[in-house]
Amino acid sequence: MFGEIYDVIVVGGGHAGAEATAAAANMGSKTLLVTMNLQTIGQMSCNPAMGGIAKGQIIREIDALGGYSGIITDKSAIQFKMLNKSKGPAMWSPRAQSDRMRFAEEWRLALERTPNVDFYQEMVTGLIVEKNKVVGVKTSLGIEIRGKSVVLTNGTFLNGLIHIGEKQFGGGRAGEKAATGITEQLVELGFDSGRMKTGTPPRVDGRSLDYSKMIPQPGDDKPEKFSYLNTPVLKKQRDCHMTHTSALVHDLLREGFDRSPMFNGRIKSIGPRYCPSIEDKINRFADKDSHQMFIEPEGWDTVEIYVNGFSTSLPEDVQFKALRSVKGFEKVKFFRPGYAIEYDYFPPTQLKHTLETKLIENLYFAGQINGTTGYEEAASQGLMAGINAHLKINEKEAFTLQRDEAYIGVLIDDLITKGTEEPYRMFTSRAEYRTLLRQDNADLRLTPKGYELGLAKEDRLKRMEEKLEKSEAFVSFFKNTSVLPEQMNPILEEVKSAPIKQSDKMFKLFSRPKVTMEHMLTLASVSEFVSSNSLDNEVLEQAEIQVKYSGYIEKEKVNADKINRLESVKIPDNFDYKKLKSLSFEAREKLSAIKPVTISQASRISGVTPSDISVLLVYLGR
Amino acid sequence: MFGEIYDVIVVGGGHAGAEATAAAANMGSKTLLVTMNLQTIGQMSCNPAMGGIAKGQIIREIDALGGYSGIITDKSAIQFKMLNKSKGPAMWSPRAQSDRMRFAEEWRLALERTPNVDFYQEMVTGLIVEKNKVVGVKTSLGIEIRGKSVVLTNGTFLNGLIHIGEKQFGGGRAGEKAATGITEQLVELGFDSGRMKTGTPPRVDGRSLDYSKMIPQPGDDKPEKFSYLNTPVLKKQRDCHMTHTSALVHDLLREGFDRSPMFNGRIKSIGPRYCPSIEDKINRFADKDSHQMFIEPEGWDTVEIYVNGFSTSLPEDVQFKALRSVKGFEKVKFFRPGYAIEYDYFPPTQLKHTLETKLIENLYFAGQINGTTGYEEAASQGLMAGINAHLKINEKEAFTLQRDEAYIGVLIDDLITKGTEEPYRMFTSRAEYRTLLRQDNADLRLTPKGYELGLAKEDRLKRMEEKLEKSEAFVSFFKNTSVLPEQMNPILEEVKSAPIKQSDKMFKLFSRPKVTMEHMLTLASVSEFVSSNSLDNEVLEQAEIQVKYSGYIEKEKVNADKINRLESVKIPDNFDYKKLKSLSFEAREKLSAIKPVTISQASRISGVTPSDISVLLVYLGR
Repeated sequence: MFGEIYDVIVVGGGHAGAEATAAAANMGSKTLLVTMNLQTIGQMSCNPAMGGIAKGQIIREIDALGGYSGIITDKSAIQFKMLNKSKGPAMWSPRAQSDRMRFAEEWRLALERTPNVDFYQEMVTGLIVEKNKVVGVKTSLGIEIRGKSVVLTNGTFLNGLIHIGEKQFGGGRAGEKAATGITEQLVELGFDSGRMKTGTPPRVDGRSLDYSKMIPQPGDDKPEKFSYLNTPVLKKQRDCHMTHTSALVHDLLREGFDRSPMFNGRIKSIGPRYCPSIEDKINRFADKDSHQMFIEPEGWDTVEIYVNGFSTSLPEDVQFKALRSVKGFEKVKFFRPGYAIEYDYFPPTQLKHTLETKLIENLYFAGQINGTTGYEEAASQGLMAGINAHLKINEKEAFTLQRDEAYIGVLIDDLITKGTEEPYRMFTSRAEYRTLLRQDNADLRLTPKGYELGLAKEDRLKRMEEKLEKSEAFVSFFKNTSVLPEQMNPILEEVKSAPIKQSDKMFKLFSRPKVTMEHMLTLASVSEFVSSNSLDNEVLEQAEIQVKYSGYIEKEKVNADKINRLESVKIPDNFDYKKLKSLSFEAREKLSAIKPVTISQASRISGVTPSDISVLLVYLGR
Repeated sequence: MFGEIYDVIVVGGGHAGAEATAAAANMGSKTLLVTMNLQTIGQMSCNPAMGGIAKGQIIREIDALGGYSGIITDKSAIQFKMLNKSKGPAMWSPRAQSDRMRFAEEWRLALERTPNVDFYQEMVTGLIVEKNKVVGVKTSLGIEIRGKSVVLTNGTFLNGLIHIGEKQFGGGRAGEKAATGITEQLVELGFDSGRMKTGTPPRVDGRSLDYSKMIPQPGDDKPEKFSYLNTPVLKKQRDCHMTHTSALVHDLLREGFDRSPMFNGRIKSIGPRYCPSIEDKINRFADKDSHQMFIEPEGWDTVEIYVNGFSTSLPEDVQFKALRSVKGFEKVKFFRPGYAIEYDYFPPTQLKHTLETKLIENLYFAGQINGTTGYEEAASQGLMAGINAHLKINEKEAFTLQRDEAYIGVLIDDLITKGTEEPYRMFTSRAEYRTLLRQDNADLRLTPKGYELGLAKEDRLKRMEEKLEKSEAFVSFFKNTSVLPEQMNPILEEVKSAPIKQSDKMFKLFSRPKVTMEHMLTLASVSEFVSSNSLDNEVLEQAEIQVKYSGYIEKEKVNADKINRLESVKIPDNFDYKKLKSLSFEAREKLSAIKPVTISQASRISGVTPSDISVLLVYLGR
């Protein structure tokens, strides 16, 4: 039935699987997407939103490289917000609410329109492995599909077990079957596997809520968007709302704790620390008697509502009773209760930087199967796995991103170097070069790479080059143009900054705190430069950041360069750490397990000390 | 959690469940729709089309009564055809291809916008029954939801078992879980249950087909629509295509017969006779070496294709190999194989005309659970069950339709009077008054009833009354207006009909074969009447049918009246047939089992002879 040998077989059609499919296919690989249900491609399993702090940056990076998540989000968005706009630009984080149905439909259609993509609906129950190389997959019908490489993106489906109170039943998501067979086979092949847990809140009927008791959370007045391409900007938006739990709500929830699978030992695996269930929040922060809740519409037209902040696996009657005590929820009606789900994952230290497994050649893992949480984390891994699956079978050099190049680089390096024992979520604090890894410059950082890969197309590169050229020209203009005291001092006075006595370079003055681009634009020469070079807002913003944060940016670049020099010191493939007795015992053990590729990676392994690194450097002849 | 007692609880969100929900809620009942997956409300499980011969009439009837199926179909249609336009108007049958995603989305949104409808996602696993009265349902989480009445519309989900070749697995549809618990409880309560089987063809990738080898099947040049309301008319349409199986294809399919669950005894239940699997067709019509196949797109934008006419549960490799030998399918790629599904049904003789069960009060069955096949059959039963559930709990008179009033009347009367041992599908031949039950007059027949029920709204009645008034006026005009030979004879000559020598009534001449409305409109007085009364096409068509088929219509009305007189002879509730020894043994047995409500119904039971009816009439004092 599948006579053809595919280049890449992607198992699963969620965020990771969809990006992997698009990437491999767009680079020219004959790609097959196998999923249990073709009607749930691009399904948002949890909340109907993309982006957020650090996560928004990841979507921008995916977009800059030529992935689809940003475009799909823009096409299906119902609200857009740039978070943290009051802080420095390293913290600015785009976030959008999506129409859940539109999001899935746009993904499905985008993949259908991508050349080289075939689709097949069935459960993959095993891999075909020959001589430690994957050569295909087997389905529940017993069909064998041959492929040069396989990307597993099984999400929460591998032996998925849903918990609500004392009830539990198999399932990959509410109303959907779990997937079986793959974990067992991988364990037999020598992989370590573990269990993780995640959860989701109740869905409720928006018509039963009293929004007058909540605080509206509108989108931005001037909504931006995710993609650097010409996707539509929102003309209308739908509000979210905020409300809070209370001491009473917590008391009501506590009444169900003895029946909670979280507390009675039924759920043993660890859930996402930064996306805890409401019972977890109450338990861990016993002194707080109120937590925020965000009420998110599921789409443009539907009345279904996602109750963000109220994830729970307490018995449904407890969920209901407690929720009814939340302000605005006095008459709430459930569409369905919240639940927790346990699923298999594979500690990601078993992977290379390309997301290929160390044990089985041409087998890649992406998404929750690697112990991550979040659509954005999953999507970016899918993208990288898809890219590398294609490159490997075409005998081309692997594509990886350094920690100073992208959040995606931080994510994957963290995963494969440090592993994770709880669902891994991205934060700006995980990135040591976060001033470099901004949402505004993901295109400048990554589009040339995406273009070289053949993933970002000409138009994308053109846009980026124009932005780069114009913003650099504008920065140069500030560097080279002086301003007279009589021109500049009114501005400085306004922001309570010391006046100047003789003319000075604009760059220097613009760098002063509180002096903004808006101020600078009041200077005739600046506004003239802008109009004569027809600079758009994106260029103005870029130039402003380059000027005002030049100090930070420079410092991080220097630091990154230092580390990157260590990055260039490669460690041979089967380096025998055991014989280096001068290494600490812990270092020998960890290094042997993780097999870092470079000294730099070795230095990031927890338990490996600077003196261990010195030993290695000496041994490797540096 | 559900403190409220619902008026009507509908279990299942397919065509039957959705119509039942809308009807009960629109009439004022607090209605809860419980479904295993809120994202699959209004899902088209099989082909992406509504209507067809006799079925299109049913959709028009649903619409005329104030149901939603016609409106949803119009909003999601991608192609429209009036079938049998070359035959008499009794045979005209509207049919539309739908965009599968749009169809489901429109249903979901339509129900969300209907007041009085609540939603809950979970599997119903049992009924709460007190003193032979249903008072609610139980879910898999153990939640009890109280309701004054319950409508079961479980489709193929009750103990659903999917077969592909020698593989079988539980499921209600591909990729969805089966529902358990209800059958077992109903059997315990005394219900008879049986198994039925249905099937679905492979879904394939439209990009892999060679349409140049197939025959395009475009929609009508002037597409009409289903709803009598002001729904949109299609401005563009998408083509279907036709191709054929061949002797080679049949040979290839036969190679898998020993592994066919249809032939090796694994599937014991009976499938739909008029929608057979391809292996069934080959088997039953061994002398035919070609069958038609219709290639139907699944939507406006998707590449997914439904292969109508190729339903099969042969092993997937056999399906694939054979399909590759079909003209245009040489390079076909599968999205998923076809499959058969077995499911529980309850012989519908256990129901009253209202679709309430005889055994358990306030419990209604609608759709495939009653042994029917087809979206339209299901939807109309849902509508009638929803209406009657509402009426019953409000202590209002039941609402039923006679066989001369609607296909819906024929359907339900057939089901509860004759039962069915194979999936029941509607045909024009099942209706003895099919000249009365036309698609063009469903509004005239039923909208006044729908309005009286409170289901059809003012605007619907207004439109219908205007159409009725204008068409009657136009018919009167033909009856009362004479035409001169010099005006009429050119027309008669054109259609090779004998010329007239003196002026005659237009009605009489218009009644002659081959004289059409188009001809009549060439007469100045006719066209003047049309424009001065601003008659639209619908009125012209209605008047034409009334004139040209007046003889047939009159005859059927007379016949119907005769039978309806028998309909008025009621049989007492617990009439004891056993003591009427003059009845044949078979009649006594059948009558005791089915408990007909009227002599007319009794006469339609197979095995009950005219002489049995005479006996009954004598006994009942007629």
